[in-house]
Formats: sequence, C-alpha cells, structure tokens
Amino acid sequence: MPDLRKDPVSQRWVIIAQERAKRPSDFVHEPMGEAPSFDPFAEGNEDKTPPEIAAYRDRGSAPNKPGWRVRVVPNKFPALQVEGHLNKRGDGLYDIMHGLGAHEVIIETPQSVPSFTGLPDAHVLDILWMYRDRLLDLQRDMRMKYGLVFKNVGASAGATLYHTHSQLICTPIVPSIMSIKTQSCEAYYKFHERCLLCDMVAQELSQKARVVADSGSFLTFAPFAPRFPFETWIVPKPHSSHFETLGRVAMEELAFVLKRVLLKIEKGLEQPPYNYMLFTSPFHTGPSEHFHWHLEITPRLTPVAGFEWGTGFYINPVPPEDAAEFLRGVKV
Amino acid sequence: MPDLRKDPVSQRWVIIAQERAKRPSDFVHEPMGEAPSFDPFAEGNEDKTPPEIAAYRDRGSAPNKPGWRVRVVPNKFPALQVEGHLNKRGDGLYDIMHGLGAHEVIIETPQSVPSFTGLPDAHVLDILWMYRDRLLDLQRDMRMKYGLVFKNVGASAGATLYHTHSQLICTPIVPSIMSIKTQSCEAYYKFHERCLLCDMVAQELSQKARVVADSGSFLTFAPFAPRFPFETWIVPKPHSSHFETLGRVAMEELAFVLKRVLLKIEKGLEQPPYNYMLFTSPFHTGPSEHFHWHLEITPRLTPVAGFEWGTGFYINPVPPEDAAEFLRGVKV
Repeated sequence: MPDLRKDPVSQRWVIIAQERAKRPSDFVHEPMGEAPSFDPFAEGNEDKTPPEIAAYRDRGSAPNKPGWRVRVVPNKFPALQVEGHLNKRGDGLYDIMHGLGAHEVIIETPQSVPSFTGLPDAHVLDILWMYRDRLLDLQRDMRMKYGLVFKNVGASAGATLYHTHSQLICTPIVPSIMSIKTQSCEAYYKFHERCLLCDMVAQELSQKARVVADSGSFLTFAPFAPRFPFETWIVPKPHSSHFETLGRVAMEELAFVLKRVLLKIEKGLEQPPYNYMLFTSPFHTGPSEHFHWHLEITPRLTPVAGFEWGTGFYINPVPPEDAAEFLRGVKV
Repeated sequence: MPDLRKDPVSQRWVIIAQERAKRPSDFVHEPMGEAPSFDPFAEGNEDKTPPEIAAYRDRGSAPNKPGWRVRVVPNKFPALQVEGHLNKRGDGLYDIMHGLGAHEVIIETPQSVPSFTGLPDAHVLDILWMYRDRLLDLQRDMRMKYGLVFKNVGASAGATLYHTHSQLICTPIVPSIMSIKTQSCEAYYKFHERCLLCDMVAQELSQKARVVADSGSFLTFAPFAPRFPFETWIVPKPHSSHFETLGRVAMEELAFVLKRVLLKIEKGLEQPPYNYMLFTSPFHTGPSEHFHWHLEITPRLTPVAGFEWGTGFYINPVPPEDAAEFLRGVKV
C-alpha cells in the first residue's frame, strides 16, 4: 500500500509509491552535459559576459580580466531587472507590477568543469562566502524582499550552460513557497514553543533511518516526505534563521559537507541532473526563533506530470529510508 | 522590463520575461514519441492490462475482448489504491496515512495513435462521456474527496506510453492546488458577489488579446499569468461548478473545441509534449456560485528549474498575448 506523507515545512502531501519502486540504476536520464566548444564562463572570456559585480581575485588583477577564483555577473537574459520602480497596478481584475529584482550568475571557478565537486574544499568555501556576500549586498536594497540562491545542473534541471555556476534571484515580494515555509514554522512554534526544524533534526537523529551524513554542526538527511527520489536536505544543527550569520568554522564545515553529499549524488546516481536551493530568511527580518535556514538538493530523475501540476501532490517511487541507505553506502 | 503578473485563481505570481522571448520554433523538444513495437493498449491486447472497469463496446462484445471504443482499466502501477482504510496517524512530528484512492487509465481508442486529435469528433465526445462516467462512479465512494482527470503526452510531460490515454486519480483529501483555487474563488465571490472565472471570461472577451477561440458555450484563452509558454485554458461561458453536469449539446461543443485547440497546439508547436488537467469541483459538494470548472492545457517546452522549485514563481518567456495571437493563426 502506498503511503501519503506530509512534509511539515512545505505542507505538501507526497505519495510514496513503493509498488512503483525503482533501483537507482533504473532511472534513465541524460548526463550532466558535455563540454561545449566555446565556454563564455572560462578564464580569458571575461569580455563575453556582462561586466562583473563581484569577484575573488588575485591581488593586482583587474576586474573583467583573468586572475579570479569566483566571479559574479548579471544574468545576460535576466528574469528580473534591478532598474526602475515596481509600479503595482491593476488591469481589470488582474494584478501586475514591473519585474523589479536582481538576477546574478555566480561563476564558481575559471575552469571549464560541470561541477565544483572536483575542486579543493577551500574553493567550495569561497563559493559559499560569495553566496553570503551577494545576499548581504543585495539586501541593502530595501525594494528587494527575498533572495534565493540556487543551482541548476543538467538540461532537464534547467541548466543551459555546462560550466559550473549558481544563480541568485531577488524578488520584490516574498515568494509563495517561502511564505508557506515561514507560516508553517511559525504555527508549529506557536503550538509547541519549539522550532520545527530543530525538532526534525532531533527526530531524524533518533530514528536514524533517513540520515545520510551527520557531522558536528550539520545534519544531512532524506526528508520524511520528499517530492523527488533521493531528495536530500542539509540543515544546521544549532538553531539559525539566517545563512548569512554562519560563523567561519561552520561555513568551512558546510563546504565540506555540501561537496561530499553532492559527490555521493553524482557518483551514486551517475551524474544526474539536479537542483539545489538555499532557503534563508526573507530580507530585512531579524533573527527568528521560528524559521531555520536549510538547503534542499533535488535530483531530477522523474518527470513532473499532469497529476503533480493538477494537485500539488507528488508521486515518489523511492521511500526516503531507501534513498538514505543508498546514499550512506556511496563511498566518496 | 519583465512583468510580474498574478494568476487570480491559483494566486501564483509569474514572471513574463519578454527579453528572454522566443519564437515557437526556438523551443527544442523531443517529439511526442514513436510507435512502440508492442502496444499493450491496442485492440487484441486486452489481456495485457488489468481487467477493465468500464468500456464503451459494440453490442454483444465481451469485456476484456476486442470490440470497444473507449476502455478504462486500473493503472498497473497505481499511485493510490482503492482497498483498505486511511489509517491516519503520526510518526513523531510527521503525518502519514495509507495511500487510499483510485488510479485509472482511460484508453481513448483501440488504435495505436499518440493523440485523439485524428479521431472523429464523435469519438472525442465518447472520451469526454467516459471522463464523466468515471467521475460519477468514483464519487459514490465517500472516502474519495477529489478526482482529477489529466493527460500526459510525451516523455518530458510524464508519459510512459505512446498510445493516447488519459488518467484519473482520486485522492482521500482535497489537493492543495484545488484548495487554493476554491479559496481564491470564494474570497473573490465574497468581495464582489460575482464568480471570478465568469468575470475573467467577460474581461477576456472584451480585451480580446488573449482569446484563442470563442464558440457559443466555451471560451479558449491564454491566461493572464501563464506558468508555461502557450498555456491555454478552456472555460465554459455559462457559470457551472461541475463538469459532470454539462448538458449533451455543450458536451458535443466541448469535444469539438478541445480537439481543435489541441490540433492547433500539436501543429503550431510541432507535436510538443503537453499535459491537460480538468479542474471540476471536489466530490460531494453541491452546485457552487464560487467555483467554475475549467480545463488547463500546458505545453511543456521549458524546463522547471531551481528558481521555480524554490519560489513557486514561474518564468515564462512568451507573453500570453503573443501566444494567443500565434495559436489563433494556426489553421486546423
């Protein structure tokens, strides 16, 4: 009998349909992509992107020239643009406003590689520092309400470029998924006087079945109600509402943890397309007892079909307990 | 400057990013699929599916034998199952229940074809009558709260079989997307004493720019805030909360309209993968002044990426006004 499970953070019901279960090797997918003949993100091609917004560079190197380790540029085809005013208005019964916001690309290395998992831990740490720097810089603009750092790897996960990169989009309203998350965390806190994700961490540590990796300050686990096969969350163990306030030592540990769980996914699932999304608190909010930042990694092995689009339910053929056991076993 | 537009029914914000605009021919996609060497849904292979639940058959033909026009069977790998009890329970802080429900496959023709658009209008009408028959039969089970009829065409829209078919899934709770739709329709009604979709139909008819086809009882249009390029809705013009109560003449018109809009999409967009979803009222609800049933057709030309998964926002490079103009121009 399949299970219906509810994710307490997103309030989403998920169907865990073991009868449809598959082994990891049964998922057919295109690989993460092939190196293109021309790579606009490679060192030496700095003039092929819009001028850089930020970069970690060798001392003495000039902007938009070689000599960088991590480089941030505006998206060439931005979904949202930083100039202008919101101009909220109606069109008959419809609501419309200008697409004000920001859309940046974080080029994670000068090398033409499809993933940062082959880079040294110290380089992955630089990428995380850059996420933080960009979030801190963008939230100085009071028109911006939320910033989402995310990564698309592979065509069916939405990537159009091979070279490893992340994106940051700032929106002028708090997105619905984030609103639902903060609302459920707040409702849970009001009822229990405890943080929902702190309680989840405690339960996962005690039940063990869904834990993928446990290090000092971070728990990596398959959530109880994952939308997708091998969906994996990284959650800081001490309560923290803002990724941006992470200390230096914890940031180093996060780089270590993130690189290794991505290595497990890339090796165990044979270079699958995947996304990850960093959920930190909305901009201009103080430290919160309710919300607890986290990172969600979602391999894209199953298509989303009419049932999901029509209901908001997801059908997942791999129970998270099986997914966690599999990922625990992948040696990296 | 991109627009941020809100769909009043789903409460979803969508980014219409014209700067990223593409012509229909710029969308690269796999075709709808190739005819398989073996087709379990073809006439003569009735023993290759679970025994039929319902069929429209030639007089005198036996169940699970040739001689049918439309045939319904249980899904061989059901996401939800009809036997047993819900058994709602907790697992620590998590919520879980048995995957009670129904999951049926409506085989739309004995012929091995990937779409019903090549069949006579009278045959398409039979498919719609079968949708109605199955919804009416399943809602006799008081454990079922909602029934969604949907269609997946092409691998990236979630189809695993070439032979044209629809599916019907019944769930033991009203799905979140349907809850949000009914809630926004109810809130609009409370404020205006009018039905939201009736007002949308009136505005679309007056503005004309998003209308794809206008027939006596149905309006076909690109919604103001479409998630996907060329997303198209079919809405009955007279207010009606339940698809199941549609009269004979209107049902014939719907068959005519649905076949022709799908022909436009298949021809104009070169056999794209697509989904459609039929949103009728939840089971066991009486006629409602608020909710207005409708059918959503969503071609799947753009991948869903980290930004959409992380925010619930969608980025659509094709303004609905352009999409409607294009589809109006496709001759079928």
